[in-house]
Amino acid sequence: MTGPPSLDVYEAMRTTRAVRRFRPDPVPDDVLARCLEAASWAPSGSNRQAWRFVVLRSPEVRSVLGPAYRQGWADMAPGYGGADPDPADTSPRARLLRTMRHFVEHFEEVPVYVLFCVAAREREVQLADGASVYPGVQNFLLACRAEGLGAVMTSWFLYAERELRDVVGIPADWLLAALVPVGWPVGGHGPVRRRPLAELASLDRWDNPFPVTPPDPSAPPDP
Amino acid sequence: MTGPPSLDVYEAMRTTRAVRRFRPDPVPDDVLARCLEAASWAPSGSNRQAWRFVVLRSPEVRSVLGPAYRQGWADMAPGYGGADPDPADTSPRARLLRTMRHFVEHFEEVPVYVLFCVAAREREVQLADGASVYPGVQNFLLACRAEGLGAVMTSWFLYAERELRDVVGIPADWLLAALVPVGWPVGGHGPVRRRPLAELASLDRWDNPFPVTPPDPSAPPDP
Repeated sequence: MTGPPSLDVYEAMRTTRAVRRFRPDPVPDDVLARCLEAASWAPSGSNRQAWRFVVLRSPEVRSVLGPAYRQGWADMAPGYGGADPDPADTSPRARLLRTMRHFVEHFEEVPVYVLFCVAAREREVQLADGASVYPGVQNFLLACRAEGLGAVMTSWFLYAERELRDVVGIPADWLLAALVPVGWPVGGHGPVRRRPLAELASLDRWDNPFPVTPPDPSAPPDP
Repeated sequence: MTGPPSLDVYEAMRTTRAVRRFRPDPVPDDVLARCLEAASWAPSGSNRQAWRFVVLRSPEVRSVLGPAYRQGWADMAPGYGGADPDPADTSPRARLLRTMRHFVEHFEEVPVYVLFCVAAREREVQLADGASVYPGVQNFLLACRAEGLGAVMTSWFLYAERELRDVVGIPADWLLAALVPVGWPVGGHGPVRRRPLAELASLDRWDNPFPVTPPDPSAPPDP
Protein backbone atom coordinates (compact mmCIF):
# COMPACT_ATOMS: atom_id res chain seq x y z
CA MET A 1 0.00 0.00 0.00
CA THR A 2 1.54 3.29 -1.08
CA GLY A 3 0.94 6.50 0.81
CA PRO A 4 -1.29 9.31 -0.39
CA PRO A 5 -0.01 11.64 -3.12
CA SER A 6 0.76 15.26 -2.30
CA LEU A 7 -1.28 18.14 -3.70
CA ASP A 8 -1.57 21.73 -2.52
CA VAL A 9 -4.93 22.36 -0.88
CA TYR A 10 -5.70 25.50 -2.92
CA GLU A 11 -4.78 23.67 -6.13
CA ALA A 12 -7.01 20.77 -5.08
CA MET A 13 -9.99 23.05 -4.43
CA ARG A 14 -9.41 25.04 -7.63
CA THR A 15 -9.39 21.91 -9.80
CA THR A 16 -12.03 19.67 -8.22
CA ARG A 17 -14.53 19.65 -11.06
CA ALA A 18 -17.55 17.42 -11.54
CA VAL A 19 -16.31 14.32 -13.43
CA ARG A 20 -18.92 12.14 -15.16
CA ARG A 21 -16.87 10.06 -17.64
CA PHE A 22 -14.84 7.23 -16.14
CA ARG A 23 -12.43 4.61 -17.38
CA PRO A 24 -13.53 1.07 -16.52
CA ASP A 25 -10.52 0.40 -14.25
CA PRO A 26 -11.49 -0.44 -10.67
CA VAL A 27 -10.74 1.84 -7.73
CA PRO A 28 -8.50 0.06 -5.18
CA ASP A 29 -9.97 -0.33 -1.69
CA ASP A 30 -6.98 1.29 0.01
CA VAL A 31 -7.29 4.42 -2.16
CA LEU A 32 -11.01 4.60 -1.44
CA ALA A 33 -10.32 4.11 2.28
CA ARG A 34 -8.01 7.14 2.29
CA CYS A 35 -10.72 9.27 0.66
CA LEU A 36 -13.34 8.00 3.13
CA GLU A 37 -11.07 8.72 6.09
CA ALA A 38 -10.66 12.28 4.77
CA ALA A 39 -14.47 12.54 4.77
CA SER A 40 -14.49 11.54 8.43
CA TRP A 41 -12.14 14.43 9.29
CA ALA A 42 -14.80 17.02 8.41
CA PRO A 43 -16.72 18.88 11.11
CA SER A 44 -20.24 17.93 12.17
CA GLY A 45 -22.69 19.45 14.65
CA SER A 46 -21.31 19.04 18.21
CA ASN A 47 -18.74 16.68 16.59
CA ARG A 48 -21.40 13.94 16.71
CA GLN A 49 -20.09 12.30 13.51
CA ALA A 50 -23.51 10.73 13.00
CA TRP A 51 -22.69 9.76 9.43
CA ARG A 52 -22.19 6.55 7.51
CA PHE A 53 -20.41 6.00 4.20
CA VAL A 54 -21.72 3.08 2.14
CA VAL A 55 -19.49 1.93 -0.71
CA LEU A 56 -21.71 0.48 -3.44
CA ARG A 57 -20.73 -1.76 -6.32
CA SER A 58 -23.03 -4.81 -6.26
CA PRO A 59 -25.07 -5.68 -9.37
CA GLU A 60 -28.25 -5.34 -7.29
CA VAL A 61 -27.46 -1.74 -6.38
CA ARG A 62 -26.40 -0.89 -9.93
CA SER A 63 -29.71 -2.13 -11.29
CA VAL A 64 -31.55 0.16 -8.89
CA LEU A 65 -29.42 3.24 -9.57
CA GLY A 66 -29.28 3.15 -13.38
CA PRO A 67 -33.00 3.65 -14.04
CA ALA A 68 -33.22 6.27 -11.27
CA TYR A 69 -30.50 8.39 -12.86
CA ARG A 70 -32.00 8.04 -16.33
CA GLN A 71 -35.31 9.21 -14.91
CA GLY A 72 -33.59 12.12 -13.19
CA TRP A 73 -32.01 13.26 -16.44
CA ALA A 74 -35.25 12.72 -18.38
CA ASP A 75 -36.95 15.13 -15.99
CA MET A 76 -34.10 17.65 -16.03
CA ALA A 77 -33.02 17.66 -19.69
CA PRO A 78 -35.90 19.80 -21.02
CA GLY A 79 -34.71 22.60 -18.73
CA TYR A 80 -31.37 22.42 -20.51
CA GLY A 81 -33.00 22.72 -23.91
CA GLY A 82 -33.36 19.02 -24.70
CA ALA A 83 -31.10 16.01 -24.37
CA ASP A 84 -30.07 15.52 -27.98
CA PRO A 85 -27.95 18.36 -29.40
CA ASP A 86 -26.83 18.58 -33.01
CA PRO A 87 -23.59 16.53 -33.34
CA ALA A 88 -21.91 19.58 -34.91
CA ASP A 89 -22.72 21.73 -31.89
CA THR A 90 -19.57 22.13 -29.75
CA SER A 91 -20.93 24.76 -27.37
CA PRO A 92 -20.49 24.18 -23.63
CA ARG A 93 -24.22 23.50 -23.36
CA ALA A 94 -24.13 20.82 -26.07
CA ARG A 95 -21.08 19.19 -24.52
CA LEU A 96 -22.78 19.14 -21.12
CA LEU A 97 -25.88 17.54 -22.66
CA ARG A 98 -23.79 14.81 -24.31
CA THR A 99 -21.83 14.20 -21.11
CA MET A 100 -25.01 13.94 -19.06
CA ARG A 101 -26.59 11.57 -21.54
CA HIS A 102 -23.50 9.35 -21.58
CA PHE A 103 -23.36 9.53 -17.76
CA VAL A 104 -26.88 8.23 -17.21
CA GLU A 105 -26.86 5.73 -20.09
CA HIS A 106 -23.74 4.11 -18.65
CA PHE A 107 -24.54 4.69 -15.00
CA GLU A 108 -24.37 0.99 -14.10
CA GLU A 109 -20.76 0.91 -15.39
CA VAL A 110 -19.39 3.51 -12.97
CA PRO A 111 -16.60 1.70 -11.07
CA VAL A 112 -17.92 2.50 -7.62
CA TYR A 113 -20.40 4.78 -5.83
CA VAL A 114 -20.33 6.11 -2.27
CA LEU A 115 -23.61 6.86 -0.51
CA PHE A 116 -23.36 9.40 2.33
CA CYS A 117 -25.96 9.03 5.07
CA VAL A 118 -26.67 11.10 8.18
CA ALA A 119 -28.73 10.22 11.25
CA ALA A 120 -32.20 11.77 11.26
CA ARG A 121 -33.12 14.12 14.11
CA GLU A 122 -36.45 13.83 15.90
CA ARG A 123 -37.97 16.84 14.11
CA GLU A 124 -38.48 18.24 10.62
CA VAL A 125 -35.39 18.49 8.44
CA GLN A 126 -33.62 21.87 8.62
CA LEU A 127 -31.06 23.42 6.30
CA ALA A 128 -28.44 23.23 9.07
CA ASP A 129 -28.75 19.42 9.18
CA GLY A 130 -26.69 19.43 5.99
CA ALA A 131 -23.82 21.04 7.93
CA SER A 132 -23.25 17.61 9.53
CA VAL A 133 -22.70 15.68 6.31
CA TYR A 134 -21.86 17.84 3.25
CA PRO A 135 -18.51 19.09 4.61
CA GLY A 136 -17.54 15.40 4.72
CA VAL A 137 -18.70 14.90 1.14
CA GLN A 138 -16.55 17.87 0.08
CA ASN A 139 -13.51 16.44 1.88
CA PHE A 140 -14.16 13.17 0.03
CA LEU A 141 -14.29 14.95 -3.34
CA LEU A 142 -11.03 16.79 -2.59
CA ALA A 143 -9.31 13.57 -1.53
CA CYS A 144 -10.50 11.88 -4.75
CA ARG A 145 -8.96 14.78 -6.67
CA ALA A 146 -5.67 14.37 -4.80
CA GLU A 147 -5.68 10.67 -5.72
CA GLY A 148 -6.33 11.49 -9.38
CA LEU A 149 -9.88 10.12 -9.19
CA GLY A 150 -12.90 11.83 -10.68
CA ALA A 151 -16.18 12.17 -8.82
CA VAL A 152 -19.38 14.20 -8.70
CA MET A 153 -21.99 14.86 -6.03
CA THR A 154 -25.44 13.69 -7.16
CA SER A 155 -28.95 13.32 -5.76
CA TRP A 156 -31.00 11.41 -8.35
CA PHE A 157 -30.81 8.27 -6.20
CA LEU A 158 -33.86 9.96 -4.64
CA TYR A 159 -35.87 8.68 -7.65
CA ALA A 160 -35.39 5.17 -6.24
CA GLU A 161 -34.93 5.92 -2.56
CA ARG A 162 -37.21 3.17 -1.31
CA GLU A 163 -35.62 0.49 -3.51
CA LEU A 164 -32.13 1.70 -2.57
CA ARG A 165 -32.98 1.58 1.13
CA ASP A 166 -34.31 -1.95 0.68
CA VAL A 167 -31.38 -3.36 -1.28
CA VAL A 168 -28.76 -1.76 1.03
CA GLY A 169 -30.74 -2.30 4.24
CA ILE A 170 -30.65 1.31 5.42
CA PRO A 171 -32.46 1.88 8.75
CA ALA A 172 -35.45 4.22 8.59
CA ASP A 173 -33.84 6.69 11.02
CA TRP A 174 -30.98 7.48 8.64
CA LEU A 175 -31.27 10.07 5.86
CA LEU A 176 -29.68 9.72 2.42
CA ALA A 177 -27.63 12.85 1.70
CA ALA A 178 -25.61 12.28 -1.47
CA LEU A 179 -24.42 9.63 -3.90
CA VAL A 180 -20.94 10.12 -5.33
CA PRO A 181 -19.94 8.08 -8.41
CA VAL A 182 -16.15 7.58 -8.45
CA GLY A 183 -13.64 6.41 -11.03
CA TRP A 184 -10.51 7.26 -12.96
CA PRO A 185 -11.46 10.14 -15.28
CA VAL A 186 -11.45 9.86 -19.07
CA GLY A 187 -10.43 13.51 -19.34
CA GLY A 188 -7.98 15.42 -17.19
CA HIS A 189 -8.54 17.61 -14.20
CA GLY A 190 -8.72 21.34 -14.66
CA PRO A 191 -9.89 24.59 -13.11
CA VAL A 192 -13.53 25.04 -12.13
CA ARG A 193 -15.58 27.79 -13.75
CA ARG A 194 -17.26 30.05 -11.24
CA ARG A 195 -18.73 33.52 -10.90
CA PRO A 196 -16.21 36.17 -9.81
CA LEU A 197 -15.94 36.69 -6.07
CA ALA A 198 -16.87 40.35 -6.43
CA GLU A 199 -20.43 39.23 -7.29
CA LEU A 200 -20.69 36.99 -4.24
CA ALA A 201 -19.12 38.73 -1.27
CA SER A 202 -20.50 41.60 0.82
CA LEU A 203 -19.22 43.51 3.83
CA ASP A 204 -21.56 44.11 6.79
CA ARG A 205 -24.50 45.02 4.55
CA TRP A 206 -26.02 42.78 1.88
CA ASP A 207 -25.68 45.46 -0.79
CA ASN A 208 -22.18 46.63 0.19
CA PRO A 209 -19.53 44.82 -1.92
CA PHE A 210 -16.55 43.27 -0.13
CA PRO A 211 -13.36 44.91 -1.47
CA VAL A 212 -11.90 42.32 -3.83
CA THR A 213 -8.69 43.24 -5.63
CA PRO A 214 -9.00 42.03 -9.22
CA PRO A 215 -6.04 40.00 -10.51
CA ASP A 216 -3.30 42.29 -11.87
CA PRO A 217 -3.02 41.46 -15.61
CA SER A 218 0.49 42.95 -15.71
CA ALA A 219 1.76 40.68 -12.93
CA PRO A 220 3.97 37.74 -13.93
CA PRO A 221 2.16 34.39 -13.94
CA ASP A 222 2.52 32.05 -10.99
CA PRO A 223 5.66 29.91 -11.21
CA MET B 1 -0.08 41.19 -1.59
CA THR B 2 1.67 37.89 -1.08
CA GLY B 3 0.43 34.68 -2.65
CA PRO B 4 -1.27 31.89 -0.75
CA PRO B 5 0.85 29.55 1.38
CA SER B 6 1.27 25.94 0.32
CA LEU B 7 -0.18 23.07 2.36
CA ASP B 8 -0.88 19.48 1.34
CA VAL B 9 -4.61 18.87 0.99
CA TYR B 10 -4.65 15.73 3.16
CA GLU B 11 -2.65 17.55 5.85
CA ALA B 12 -5.09 20.48 5.64
CA MET B 13 -8.13 18.21 6.06
CA ARG B 14 -6.48 16.21 8.89
CA THR B 15 -5.68 19.35 10.89
CA THR B 16 -8.69 21.61 10.33
CA ARG B 17 -10.04 21.64 13.86
CA ALA B 18 -12.69 23.89 15.38
CA VAL B 19 -10.86 26.99 16.70
CA ARG B 20 -12.68 29.18 19.24
CA ARG B 21 -9.89 31.25 20.85
CA PHE B 22 -8.49 34.07 18.73
CA ARG B 23 -5.78 36.66 19.04
CA PRO B 24 -7.11 40.22 18.62
CA ASP B 25 -5.07 40.87 15.44
CA PRO B 26 -7.20 41.71 12.41
CA VAL B 27 -7.54 39.44 9.39
CA PRO B 28 -6.32 41.21 6.23
CA ASP B 29 -8.91 41.59 3.47
CA ASP B 30 -6.70 39.96 0.84
CA VAL B 31 -6.26 36.83 2.99
CA LEU B 32 -10.01 36.68 3.60
CA ALA B 33 -10.64 37.15 -0.12
CA ARG B 34 -8.51 34.10 -0.94
CA CYS B 35 -10.50 32.00 1.53
CA LEU B 36 -13.80 33.29 0.12
CA GLU B 37 -12.72 32.55 -3.42
CA ALA B 38 -11.88 28.99 -2.33
CA ALA B 39 -15.45 28.76 -1.01
CA SER B 40 -16.74 29.76 -4.44
CA TRP B 41 -14.87 26.85 -6.06
CA ALA B 42 -17.06 24.28 -4.29
CA PRO B 43 -19.81 22.43 -6.14
CA SER B 44 -23.48 23.42 -5.93
CA GLY B 45 -26.64 21.91 -7.40
CA SER B 46 -26.59 22.34 -11.20
CA ASN B 47 -23.61 24.68 -10.59
CA ARG B 48 -26.12 27.44 -9.78
CA GLN B 49 -23.76 29.07 -7.23
CA ALA B 50 -26.78 30.63 -5.57
CA TRP B 51 -24.77 31.59 -2.51
CA ARG B 52 -23.60 34.80 -0.89
CA PHE B 53 -20.79 35.34 1.58
CA VAL B 54 -21.29 38.26 3.97
CA VAL B 55 -18.19 39.40 5.86
CA LEU B 56 -19.30 40.85 9.19
CA ARG B 57 -17.36 43.09 11.54
CA SER B 58 -19.52 46.16 12.29
CA PRO B 59 -20.34 47.05 15.91
CA GLU B 60 -24.04 46.74 15.07
CA VAL B 61 -23.65 43.13 13.94
CA ARG B 62 -21.43 42.27 16.92
CA SER B 63 -24.05 43.53 19.34
CA VAL B 64 -26.63 41.25 17.71
CA LEU B 65 -24.41 38.16 17.64
CA GLY B 66 -22.94 38.26 21.16
CA PRO B 67 -26.22 37.78 23.08
CA ALA B 68 -27.39 35.15 20.56
CA TYR B 69 -24.31 33.01 21.11
CA ARG B 70 -24.49 33.38 24.89
CA GLN B 71 -28.12 32.23 24.72
CA GLY B 72 -27.13 29.31 22.52
CA TRP B 73 -24.53 28.15 25.00
CA ALA B 74 -26.86 28.73 27.96
CA ASP B 75 -29.31 26.32 26.33
CA MET B 76 -26.63 23.78 25.38
CA ALA B 77 -24.35 23.79 28.44
CA PRO B 78 -26.59 21.68 30.70
CA GLY B 79 -26.31 18.86 28.18
CA TYR B 80 -22.55 19.01 28.69
CA GLY B 81 -22.90 18.76 32.48
CA GLY B 82 -22.93 22.46 33.32
CA ALA B 83 -20.92 25.44 32.18
CA ASP B 84 -18.68 25.95 35.21
CA PRO B 85 -16.23 23.09 35.80
CA ASP B 86 -13.92 22.88 38.82
CA PRO B 87 -10.75 24.88 38.00
CA ALA B 88 -8.65 21.82 38.92
CA ASP B 89 -10.47 19.66 36.35
CA THR B 90 -8.26 19.23 33.24
CA SER B 91 -10.42 16.61 31.50
CA PRO B 92 -11.30 17.18 27.82
CA ARG B 93 -14.87 17.89 28.88
CA ALA B 94 -13.82 20.57 31.38
CA ARG B 95 -11.49 22.17 28.83
CA LEU B 96 -14.28 22.23 26.24
CA LEU B 97 -16.62 23.86 28.75
CA ARG B 98 -14.06 26.58 29.55
CA THR B 99 -13.34 27.16 25.86
CA MET B 100 -17.04 27.44 25.04
CA ARG B 101 -17.64 29.82 27.91
CA HIS B 102 -14.73 32.02 26.84
CA PHE B 103 -15.92 31.84 23.23
CA VAL B 104 -19.40 33.15 23.94
CA GLU B 105 -18.38 35.65 26.62
CA HIS B 106 -15.94 37.27 24.18
CA PHE B 107 -17.95 36.68 21.02
CA GLU B 108 -18.09 40.38 20.12
CA GLU B 109 -14.25 40.44 20.07
CA VAL B 110 -13.83 37.83 17.32
CA PRO B 111 -11.86 39.61 14.56
CA VAL B 112 -14.33 38.81 11.78
CA TYR B 113 -17.27 36.55 10.98
CA VAL B 114 -18.45 35.22 7.62
CA LEU B 115 -22.14 34.49 7.12
CA PHE B 116 -22.92 31.96 4.38
CA CYS B 117 -26.31 32.35 2.70
CA VAL B 118 -28.09 30.28 0.05
CA ALA B 119 -31.06 31.16 -2.12
CA ALA B 120 -34.34 29.66 -0.91
CA ARG B 121 -36.21 27.30 -3.23
CA GLU B 122 -39.95 27.61 -3.76
CA ARG B 123 -40.77 24.62 -1.55
CA GLU B 124 -40.02 23.23 1.91
CA VAL B 125 -36.36 22.96 2.86
CA GLN B 126 -34.82 19.56 2.08
CA LEU B 127 -31.62 17.99 3.36
CA ALA B 128 -30.12 18.16 -0.15
CA ASP B 129 -30.42 21.97 -0.14
CA GLY B 130 -27.39 21.95 2.12
CA ALA B 131 -25.38 20.34 -0.70
CA SER B 132 -25.39 23.75 -2.40
CA VAL B 133 -23.73 25.67 0.43
CA TYR B 134 -21.89 23.51 3.01
CA PRO B 135 -19.24 22.24 0.57
CA GLY B 136 -18.34 25.92 0.12
CA VAL B 137 -18.16 26.43 3.88
CA GLN B 138 -15.81 23.44 4.13
CA ASN B 139 -13.57 24.87 1.37
CA PHE B 140 -13.53 28.13 3.32
CA LEU B 141 -12.47 26.34 6.53
CA LEU B 142 -9.70 24.49 4.69
CA ALA B 143 -8.43 27.70 3.10
CA CYS B 144 -8.41 29.39 6.53
CA ARG B 145 -6.32 26.46 7.81
CA ALA B 146 -3.90 26.87 4.90
CA GLU B 147 -3.55 30.56 5.76
CA GLY B 148 -2.89 29.75 9.43
CA LEU B 149 -6.27 31.15 10.47
CA GLY B 150 -8.60 29.46 12.92
CA ALA B 151 -12.34 29.14 12.34
CA VAL B 152 -15.37 27.13 13.33
CA MET B 153 -18.75 26.49 11.74
CA THR B 154 -21.59 27.68 14.00
CA SER B 155 -25.37 28.07 13.92
CA TRP B 156 -26.40 29.98 17.06
CA PHE B 157 -26.93 33.12 14.99
CA LEU B 158 -30.34 31.47 14.58
CA TYR B 159 -31.16 32.75 18.10
CA ALA B 160 -31.18 36.26 16.60
CA GLU B 161 -32.04 35.51 13.00
CA ARG B 162 -34.59 38.29 12.61
CA GLU B 163 -32.31 40.95 14.12
CA LEU B 164 -29.38 39.71 12.03
CA ARG B 165 -31.47 39.85 8.86
CA ASP B 166 -32.53 43.39 9.73
CA VAL B 167 -29.09 44.77 10.53
CA VAL B 168 -27.46 43.16 7.45
CA GLY B 169 -30.43 43.71 5.15
CA ILE B 170 -30.77 40.09 4.00
CA PRO B 171 -33.63 39.55 1.52
CA ALA B 172 -36.40 37.23 2.70
CA ASP B 173 -35.76 34.75 -0.13
CA TRP B 174 -32.25 33.93 1.11
CA LEU B 175 -31.56 31.34 3.83
CA LEU B 176 -28.87 31.68 6.48
CA ALA B 177 -26.74 28.54 6.45
CA ALA B 178 -23.72 29.08 8.72
CA LEU B 179 -21.75 31.73 10.58
CA VAL B 180 -17.99 31.21 10.71
CA PRO B 181 -15.97 33.25 13.25
CA VAL B 182 -12.40 33.72 11.96
CA GLY B 183 -9.14 34.88 13.50
CA TRP B 184 -5.54 34.00 14.24
CA PRO B 185 -5.65 31.14 16.74
CA VAL B 186 -4.31 31.42 20.29
CA GLY B 187 -3.27 27.76 20.21
CA GLY B 188 -1.74 25.82 17.34
CA HIS B 189 -3.34 23.64 14.72
CA GLY B 190 -3.35 19.91 15.25
CA PRO B 191 -5.02 16.67 14.20
CA VAL B 192 -8.77 16.25 14.54
CA ARG B 193 -10.15 13.49 16.77
CA ARG B 194 -12.60 11.26 15.00
CA ARG B 195 -14.12 7.79 15.19
CA PRO B 196 -12.16 5.13 13.30
CA LEU B 197 -13.21 4.61 9.70
CA ALA B 198 -13.99 0.95 10.36
CA GLU B 199 -17.02 2.09 12.41
CA LEU B 200 -18.31 4.34 9.63
CA ALA B 201 -17.88 2.60 6.29
CA SER B 202 -19.91 -0.25 4.82
CA LEU B 203 -19.78 -2.18 1.55
CA ASP B 204 -23.00 -2.77 -0.41
CA ARG B 205 -24.99 -3.64 2.73
CA TRP B 206 -25.46 -1.38 5.76
CA ASP B 207 -24.22 -4.08 8.15
CA ASN B 208 -21.30 -5.28 5.99
CA PRO B 209 -18.06 -3.49 7.04
CA PHE B 210 -15.90 -1.96 4.34
CA PRO B 211 -12.45 -3.61 4.48
CA VAL B 212 -10.23 -1.04 6.18
CA THR B 213 -6.61 -2.01 6.78
CA PRO B 214 -5.68 -0.79 10.27
CA PRO B 215 -2.43 1.19 10.52
CA ASP B 216 0.57 -1.13 10.96
CA PRO B 217 2.06 -0.26 14.40
CA SER B 218 5.42 -1.79 13.39
CA ALA B 219 5.72 0.46 10.33
CA PRO B 220 8.17 3.36 10.54
CA PRO B 221 6.50 6.75 11.09
CA ASP B 222 5.91 9.05 8.18
CA PRO B 223 9.00 11.09 7.31
